[in-house]
Amino acid sequence: MKALVYQGPGQKSWTEVPDPVIQHPTDVIVKMVATTICGTDLHILKGDVPEVTPGRILGHEGIGVITEVGSGVTQLAVGDRVILACVSSCGRCSNCRQGLYSHCLDPEGIAGIGWIFGYMIDGTQAEYVRVPFAENSVYKVPEGVTDAEGILLSDILPTGFEIGVQYGQVTPGDVVAVIGSGPVGLSAVMTARLYGPSKIIAIDLDAARLARAQDFGASATVNSGDADWKDQVLAHTDGLGVDVAIEAVGIPQTFTMATEIVRPGGHVANIGVHGKPVELALNKLWISNIDIAMGLVNTNTLGMLLKLVAAHQLPVEKFVTHEFGFDQILDAYDTFGNAAQHDALKVLIH
Amino acid sequence: MKALVYQGPGQKSWTEVPDPVIQHPTDVIVKMVATTICGTDLHILKGDVPEVTPGRILGHEGIGVITEVGSGVTQLAVGDRVILACVSSCGRCSNCRQGLYSHCLDPEGIAGIGWIFGYMIDGTQAEYVRVPFAENSVYKVPEGVTDAEGILLSDILPTGFEIGVQYGQVTPGDVVAVIGSGPVGLSAVMTARLYGPSKIIAIDLDAARLARAQDFGASATVNSGDADWKDQVLAHTDGLGVDVAIEAVGIPQTFTMATEIVRPGGHVANIGVHGKPVELALNKLWISNIDIAMGLVNTNTLGMLLKLVAAHQLPVEKFVTHEFGFDQILDAYDTFGNAAQHDALKVLIH
Amino acid sequence: MKALVYQGPGQKSWTEVPDPVIQHPTDVIVKMVATTICGTDLHILKGDVPEVTPGRILGHEGIGVITEVGSGVTQLAVGDRVILACVSSCGRCSNCRQGLYSHCLDPEGIAGIGWIFGYMIDGTQAEYVRVPFAENSVYKVPEGVTDAEGILLSDILPTGFEIGVQYGQVTPGDVVAVIGSGPVGLSAVMTARLYGPSKIIAIDLDAARLARAQDFGASATVNSGDADWKDQVLAHTDGLGVDVAIEAVGIPQTFTMATEIVRPGGHVANIGVHGKPVELALNKLWISNIDIAMGLVNTNTLGMLLKLVAAHQLPVEKFVTHEFGFDQILDAYDTFGNAAQHDALKVLIH
Amino acid sequence: MKALVYQGPGQKSWTEVPDPVIQHPTDVIVKMVATTICGTDLHILKGDVPEVTPGRILGHEGIGVITEVGSGVTQLAVGDRVILACVSSCGRCSNCRQGLYSHCLDPEGIAGIGWIFGYMIDGTQAEYVRVPFAENSVYKVPEGVTDAEGILLSDILPTGFEIGVQYGQVTPGDVVAVIGSGPVGLSAVMTARLYGPSKIIAIDLDAARLARAQDFGASATVNSGDADWKDQVLAHTDGLGVDVAIEAVGIPQTFTMATEIVRPGGHVANIGVHGKPVELALNKLWISNIDIAMGLVNTNTLGMLLKLVAAHQLPVEKFVTHEFGFDQILDAYDTFGNAAQHDALKVLIH
Repeated sequence: MKALVYQGPGQKSWTEVPDPVIQHPTDVIVKMVATTICGTDLHILKGDVPEVTPGRILGHEGIGVITEVGSGVTQLAVGDRVILACVSSCGRCSNCRQGLYSHCLDPEGIAGIGWIFGYMIDGTQAEYVRVPFAENSVYKVPEGVTDAEGILLSDILPTGFEIGVQYGQVTPGDVVAVIGSGPVGLSAVMTARLYGPSKIIAIDLDAARLARAQDFGASATVNSGDADWKDQVLAHTDGLGVDVAIEAVGIPQTFTMATEIVRPGGHVANIGVHGKPVELALNKLWISNIDIAMGLVNTNTLGMLLKLVAAHQLPVEKFVTHEFGFDQILDAYDTFGNAAQHDALKVLIH
Repeated sequence: MKALVYQGPGQKSWTEVPDPVIQHPTDVIVKMVATTICGTDLHILKGDVPEVTPGRILGHEGIGVITEVGSGVTQLAVGDRVILACVSSCGRCSNCRQGLYSHCLDPEGIAGIGWIFGYMIDGTQAEYVRVPFAENSVYKVPEGVTDAEGILLSDILPTGFEIGVQYGQVTPGDVVAVIGSGPVGLSAVMTARLYGPSKIIAIDLDAARLARAQDFGASATVNSGDADWKDQVLAHTDGLGVDVAIEAVGIPQTFTMATEIVRPGGHVANIGVHGKPVELALNKLWISNIDIAMGLVNTNTLGMLLKLVAAHQLPVEKFVTHEFGFDQILDAYDTFGNAAQHDALKVLIH
Repeated sequence: MKALVYQGPGQKSWTEVPDPVIQHPTDVIVKMVATTICGTDLHILKGDVPEVTPGRILGHEGIGVITEVGSGVTQLAVGDRVILACVSSCGRCSNCRQGLYSHCLDPEGIAGIGWIFGYMIDGTQAEYVRVPFAENSVYKVPEGVTDAEGILLSDILPTGFEIGVQYGQVTPGDVVAVIGSGPVGLSAVMTARLYGPSKIIAIDLDAARLARAQDFGASATVNSGDADWKDQVLAHTDGLGVDVAIEAVGIPQTFTMATEIVRPGGHVANIGVHGKPVELALNKLWISNIDIAMGLVNTNTLGMLLKLVAAHQLPVEKFVTHEFGFDQILDAYDTFGNAAQHDALKVLIH
Repeated sequence: MKALVYQGPGQKSWTEVPDPVIQHPTDVIVKMVATTICGTDLHILKGDVPEVTPGRILGHEGIGVITEVGSGVTQLAVGDRVILACVSSCGRCSNCRQGLYSHCLDPEGIAGIGWIFGYMIDGTQAEYVRVPFAENSVYKVPEGVTDAEGILLSDILPTGFEIGVQYGQVTPGDVVAVIGSGPVGLSAVMTARLYGPSKIIAIDLDAARLARAQDFGASATVNSGDADWKDQVLAHTDGLGVDVAIEAVGIPQTFTMATEIVRPGGHVANIGVHGKPVELALNKLWISNIDIAMGLVNTNTLGMLLKLVAAHQLPVEKFVTHEFGFDQILDAYDTFGNAAQHDALKVLIH
């Protein structure tokens, strides 16, 4: 088969590799129908993630059709059209039983966390992929859900919802601020309304991204390049701050912004992937009655979100701005790697 | 002043009565701007509620302007435009501190529950009303909220939301059934979406009411007069039942319907006011992992719902189908008392 | 091997039967080390449960050692000492993923609920037992936990905790009443303190059982045979009722008692197995802001409770009042079947 | 009357001052029966809290008898023996209605937070004190609760419970670590068991304090001066970390310790009062699925904790190690200010 293979820092190719085979009774093999590219793939390609070794097939999002099932698989069958969760989880360890799939204790010794596709094992930017712990890690696609919709459910929609909206404890009537209007930030914007906020404020430096945020459900936008950005945010509240501040960028400055606009009694949820420590002003915040949550998506809401998509309650198709064939995957990388220039959000490779 | 006075079973009049006066330091006097009629008022007029004695001014919903404040009132002022909660609560007793305003322990000895307007003390269908425990029982109306919007917040919108949606524990992705499409049932339909359900099924015997339910947010309707009504409901689920069944009628049959369509692990919320005991099939249900909740509205979400109305997130103005002047209040009673004939939902008296 | 076999109403024998064999890749075979008898076994023996056909091995509680594992089992090994949950659950269906193991959708078509041992498939009162879905249905026993402790975790301790204490939403400071001081009622008494109640009131008709309840953690007892039993209960509260009323008998009268002593805003949890419908006074209770929960144990707290037992935080060994060898199992049935006469609570067969 | 008056940095006196008088209808005057000293009082005396001006009476904890009530007070009477919450809250603003008393919006313009006694207004180390918003800020003392018990409920017991245990989301079976065994840390140790943890690990540098922690309910202790302290903590877990880490010191090092011992999916609760920002290793922690909570006590559990004390479920009398008369208050300061030397925990002044 062909696959997108990491060849070392700065190098990748769409090349012929051996087909995957069943390794454990709980595995299935899936023929990929669609996949996409995540910012993490770009980080790996830069060489920022040294655990990823040359020869690794990238990608952790996808939708496909099962072509083979392991001997221990009873609830999935050849021919099933499925969404692959970006997190692989055994479903049986003490963490999985609590829904903490992101920290599956993984008895096969593959890794210490649930995210392994395109990282510790071969990923989804390929014609076929081996899916470990398949019964807990893939979801059958209901009638009427398209590839462009389903692909969003592998990672970014659950990430925005679980780590942003749920960890941020959004409740009806809340004023919610989302800092960063990239794919994950917009996932938080779109799914925040599942808990009935009164206002969703998108905050970003880029006017074009803010315009898109409004289309995704933001009721107001604030350009954080403005000197008075903070006052603009507070003007949408009763003056005390937002109920929930969601960080979806991953740098110290935006994290600090979140802690500065949250009200006493409010919540900060960090979705961003950070490369550096941050300074937390505990000297001011110890008295503030806030909490700060963070983490990797569990995908334990994937099935629920899929029901909402199937019922046409979440217009996720908006995320896909560009489409490519599998053999155009290098072009897809070019487009996604220069997202601002192409006004790209998510690219669908199918 | 003039007021709508209960004169004994079957008898009422819009008549001259003494103006109310401050009785306790925590009272305020409100000049009514708008009021409305509730099904409970009709029950009282029939003589079904013997605690209500002739001479009582009816009504427990309303919006008005403060004209006088008691000596202990510091957070309200003459001239404030306020919504009156249907429940009066001291805010200081052990029940109130838990948000259980419906069971305020009421140290003034007026009654054993929070609902006293138009029941144990004079109510809101009058030119002026004395409001006890005003600081915990009225809410300032934000700019831009109309009388026709505000009046819904006194009772029915919080009732549908608190007792139906919150007691029913609606969560994102749920399939919710609401039995009964009267004002309170429609309040549950409208506010259910604050918790992101995938489907809201309205169930009623009347096609016209079901059509209105769709306008209020129901994604499907089922006529419970159909022999296969239950199959129709289940067809909107995965076959196991609805996640949440909300009863908004108040008769044994509809309560039983709710327990029959709820899935294992699901929730039943009873909003209906019942006049008779019901048979609960505990021989079948003991194994079903459901819960059944019931109660009187606390109005502790009134402020939050008001924020949503002010932010144009809840189209509550739809509830008002007819408008009358205060001196036409007897006509308003005629219209509301024959709601089906007039296709009436809520009448605004202002 | 030998097993306790149901031979039709009123008839049972400890007799030779074929050894169980692995039927599915997710099965294991366990050599039983200890088992016990439940009230349900007595019901089956009376012929009250027609789904149970002659030839069925009874029992759904037990502790043993794995002797064989299916090909899909990777996290359990021959030699593991394990507790068998009374509920068998696949861990992968939509119900199981929500922790609703009691309503496992069970793709093998064995039954519609999670309880199948000694009911739809052969049970644990045997020398060996086949355990379906083993990885989700057995728990390794930590060092230092005895058979007499472990056996309680199969069913009754999780039942009292999950259906009584958790469904009853006990919170710190609560006054909790438990109606019925049999094994399951005492499980609720013992585990209620995991949520820090201020008082636990045991209610029963039998003075000896009430004395035992105090030993199990009740802070007060009330004999429900007393004419003023209800006043006695209220005297332990502020006069308004208990915060949580747990029913652990299973007859209409005790269910009604629970609804009569619960305070406004409180919770009723029904653990009892009911054979008849009950009358629910919704005409009085609709206004009471209570909820009534019921269900079959999920055993999803089994692992957690096991940690507490291993840390010596729950003195569960108190439950075992009599011990027998496997070949004395008929004597064990005699003793347990005449529990009052023998002052028996749980019998350990090992 | 006489009172302990702050006279500027390093200076205090027990001196004659005017008696307090009712200023608002919601005030009461309390004759103090007992008070105590908090670490914050020492900070103020050092001059670390510049908002506190010379002439201020210190102290925010106490128990006393009401001698006068304002005209708006209906639920309290002269002669009531009451505990004063350290936080004054109107009970009517939007924050108070959510139980966020620590951030009472305070319409009287006294301060921006709920803690004002001995800070923005005169405090409790006096013969008499004016208590604002009395009905929401004092609690009647039940029969049988002593001064030495009641005094703990003003501040430190609710602080340990609300900010440590509840913000840390302790649940049954958890392994809880409490860093710091001073009065507030020990409050967390003592109240953690209200949520049924399997283990409570006290961590401190001082062997004497650790010994006391065991007496207060810790099941294990670790001296953080040991090079392998972290391994010692992990040895009490399954190797992955504690479920809840409570910081009760207030310096960067102990905060970092908390983030290093918490497991994926666990909780950090910061009670410590910090004078400096801390570095948060978000580069490592973003993936850890933890949350970090912090804040000032709301005292909204004071009434509940008082019920537990009255029911002899919390041995709070252990906190008082020394007793003084009001006229020995300077000696009390000496003892408390040199707590280690005197092996002092809390001093009772009565």
